[in-house]
Amino acid sequence: PSQARINSARQRQDSLTKPPGSLGQLESLAIALCGQLDTEKPAVDRVQITVFAADHGVCDEQISAFPQSVTGQMIANFAAGGAAISVLSAALGAELDVVNLGSIGPLAEMPGVINHRIAAGTANLAREPAMSEAQLVAALAAGDQAAQRAADRGAQLFIGGEMGIGNTTTAAALACALLGAAPTDLTGPGTGLSKQQVTHKTAVVERALARHGDNQDPFAVLASLGGFEIAGLAGAFLGCASRGIPVLVDGFIASVAALVACRQQPALRPWLHFAHRSCEPGHSRVLDALEANPLLDLSMRLGEGSGAAVAVPLLRLACALHNGMASFAEAGVSEGS
Amino acid sequence: PSQARINSARQRQDSLTKPPGSLGQLESLAIALCGQLDTEKPAVDRVQITVFAADHGVCDEQISAFPQSVTGQMIANFAAGGAAISVLSAALGAELDVVNLGSIGPLAEMPGVINHRIAAGTANLAREPAMSEAQLVAALAAGDQAAQRAADRGAQLFIGGEMGIGNTTTAAALACALLGAAPTDLTGPGTGLSKQQVTHKTAVVERALARHGDNQDPFAVLASLGGFEIAGLAGAFLGCASRGIPVLVDGFIASVAALVACRQQPALRPWLHFAHRSCEPGHSRVLDALEANPLLDLSMRLGEGSGAAVAVPLLRLACALHNGMASFAEAGVSEGS
Repeated sequence: PSQARINSARQRQDSLTKPPGSLGQLESLAIALCGQLDTEKPAVDRVQITVFAADHGVCDEQISAFPQSVTGQMIANFAAGGAAISVLSAALGAELDVVNLGSIGPLAEMPGVINHRIAAGTANLAREPAMSEAQLVAALAAGDQAAQRAADRGAQLFIGGEMGIGNTTTAAALACALLGAAPTDLTGPGTGLSKQQVTHKTAVVERALARHGDNQDPFAVLASLGGFEIAGLAGAFLGCASRGIPVLVDGFIASVAALVACRQQPALRPWLHFAHRSCEPGHSRVLDALEANPLLDLSMRLGEGSGAAVAVPLLRLACALHNGMASFAEAGVSEGS
Repeated sequence: PSQARINSARQRQDSLTKPPGSLGQLESLAIALCGQLDTEKPAVDRVQITVFAADHGVCDEQISAFPQSVTGQMIANFAAGGAAISVLSAALGAELDVVNLGSIGPLAEMPGVINHRIAAGTANLAREPAMSEAQLVAALAAGDQAAQRAADRGAQLFIGGEMGIGNTTTAAALACALLGAAPTDLTGPGTGLSKQQVTHKTAVVERALARHGDNQDPFAVLASLGGFEIAGLAGAFLGCASRGIPVLVDGFIASVAALVACRQQPALRPWLHFAHRSCEPGHSRVLDALEANPLLDLSMRLGEGSGAAVAVPLLRLACALHNGMASFAEAGVSEGS
């Protein structure tokens, strides 16, 4: 981001007809967007939403309330317009792409769905590495291609969503490995497990971490504990930053992808906005590690990029205020003492 | 609100393609709007924003960082389109009215500004009752007329904003009197006082409460401690509820107006949504008394209705999701166990 743009944007905010700082996070949002988009008058009219979907071998361990077939069914629902992220994308006038990185079964071609199926889901991370190095490279590249599509379309903001039954287990394992945290602190109910089921899920994460060992290299952790869609998100975030596109990070899964990517490339961090604090208990710990203070806390826990989509109007209104308000001098309003 | 609509809306939310409850407060928002608007498919396309402005005699006590002339200057800024609420109204496609209930000096006629000037500001509440009973009735009536204009325009949501240099002092005194709270707990920096200035402001609120005594009748408290614009807001909120229009309450001042109005008429409460948690320290105490859990917490403290305006897209997206998502049956997605 451009420090010169950030400095002049901060000066402009202090000249506008309001007590200094009284628009709170809307001021810092507008200032950051000026730096990221390298402009005096920021706008986020063109939003790219890309949902990465994949299945998880760890579902063999019975860690989800939903059957694995739901991943493919939801891909069809995204394409048909019936899912939350489909409705939100339409309401926001955003572009929506879905990238299938590894549903358990092959899917029919559908408009808006890019078939980039690496395998029939990852391997079971509780027993063996979730993916091979070649598979990791393929998933990261699919993410980078999504960033390139966003750049080609002139996107001013990128949102990465995810769909994958079992992926809160994967994300908890990844976060534990990167943060050195205990599985009991980061494993939660996901789509709706009982307390007893969360205890079982926690034990599965513990087995995965014992198998993985203490390697904290970000991409080694990612290959070992996996999630094709999480690797896709990490690749997309890195690809957006390198192309100058700010990213609005969704909930727990997307934040874990951001954590992996920031550990790999710390220069990514200033390109990231954080949209919301998920109900999933591990999310706050991951946000703390990223020094992130998200915009919303609405008890959401859906994924798909839905929490980030809901925050888009806040960025748009922050831009409108920054660009459209009068200064004290322009309006003839007396400044405070 | 219609309990039958609320019940069927809750059933619909549980049928949609997402883990039950995973859209958090967006689900409860949509359900409440179905009951308030008495419909299966809620929408908040037509939003009325009315900003009530007035001056405060308590400014004689040096409790604000800004001179009293700013109230009138900001009324002109609202009309000219340069204030935060003007920019937000335009961005949201909302109707914006400004009602001048008592600037210290008379103002020229301006488009969008309704002249309903009761007096040259309230009296100094630290020394005498802020307004007479006749003045209270006039301010409440101006609020009711604003609700009637909203109804005439088919508004699906009402936002009441306020402008009045000195009105955090007034609001703190009102909240203390109604809640039996200590001035030190509810008096804050407003537009930007130093710690020492807040101590002085707190002493002014203490003098006002000592003069007022222990009468907790809501409208008696309102007349004694005042704020023409706060009475206007209270009248508007009551008028909206009686006409079936839901209200989105802004920050500290508007919430104190809601507290007065709910104490007067408890049936008002189910018509109110709360938009944001202000930085002003007294706000959380007032929200607790109203059992309100606001949508946003963005460190805003501007007033004008700006925090409520920023929350409007959340209501709109909640409606879009409620109306537009597919059910599990429609999408052929398997339900959880």
